Amino acid sequence: MKRVYLAGPEVFLPNAIEVGRAKVAMAKEAGFEGLFPLEQQLDLDALPKTEQARRISLANEALMRSADLLIANLTPFRGVSMDAGTAFEVGYMRAIGRPVLGYTNVPGDYRSRAEAFRRRGIPPGDSDASGFEIEDFGMAENLMIAVAILESGGSLVEGDAPAGLEMADLTAYRHCLEEARRICLD
Amino acid sequence: MKRVYLAGPEVFLPNAIEVGRAKVAMAKEAGFEGLFPLEQQLDLDALPKTEQARRISLANEALMRSADLLIANLTPFRGVSMDAGTAFEVGYMRAIGRPVLGYTNVPGDYRSRAEAFRRRGIPPGDSDASGFEIEDFGMAENLMIAVAILESGGSLVEGDAPAGLEMADLTAYRHCLEEARRICLD
Repeated sequence: MKRVYLAGPEVFLPNAIEVGRAKVAMAKEAGFEGLFPLEQQLDLDALPKTEQARRISLANEALMRSADLLIANLTPFRGVSMDAGTAFEVGYMRAIGRPVLGYTNVPGDYRSRAEAFRRRGIPPGDSDASGFEIEDFGMAENLMIAVAILESGGSLVEGDAPAGLEMADLTAYRHCLEEARRICLD
Repeated sequence: MKRVYLAGPEVFLPNAIEVGRAKVAMAKEAGFEGLFPLEQQLDLDALPKTEQARRISLANEALMRSADLLIANLTPFRGVSMDAGTAFEVGYMRAIGRPVLGYTNVPGDYRSRAEAFRRRGIPPGDSDASGFEIEDFGMAENLMIAVAILESGGSLVEGDAPAGLEMADLTAYRHCLEEARRICLD
């Protein structure tokens, strides 16, 4: 059974384990073994914070290497773009030649979100400024992410989750699994 | 001469070429050939937008593969975290085993920025919500980024640029070059 690494900021949800198990169950229905990073048994409690972080990171990298493909949740998280850790993981799997698929639960391209960010006023300490170019390729995310997904053979699914369910809705994830079947299993 | 890929959202600055050349000149003084992604000659003007994006992305990936190491500008950009394209590039170079160094021009850890983001009010369409865990490892960025940099042999330099110069200040970048010398040339 092909192994799919499930990347995304769901690991920060209060019910992360439950959401992860739902994603793993749906992956199984689609014919994949889902790998949810938070389900690894790492026994971190007695360790200093930096050592905890180190072990989580190295375990996630090893889990990626053990996976045949990646499905990334690209939904905007704490800013104009996706979660930075997930972007790292998309780059990681792209570099080692594995198919990457992605989905976002918020419709609209990068440009429209960057413009909305500016309309709210650029916060202190943020390095954006009026006059800076805003990427305008009609893509849902920075071109390094969006193109890598397509060039790897994957798909970028744009969903439209109800307000308040931008992180938890699994409709676009389900479409991604169907695409993954098409790429890997048919 | 070792080749260093210069990753960061400076490519979006109005004077991006000028800033890129300054970074390349400083890299040269430190003994490196600096590779600034915007300086590639791609002849994109007559092409449709999606084909432009595709060529830029593939050229950047090829440039990364040609590089011996990466220095990434991790300064927060349009949100709590660094630029998503740069995070992708950190993951890419980490995956192929090259040293990665990073710097940020804004002091403070991920947690303090995420808390400030919430105090301003979570914007519509953003998937963050109160109750979501905020990473708290005392690191300047998501642990996948920060740990990968350290584990690759690199350093994460935390600068403190004057207000308004969060993107353009090159002090922390200079420290990164010194660290890169220590890793690669000494």
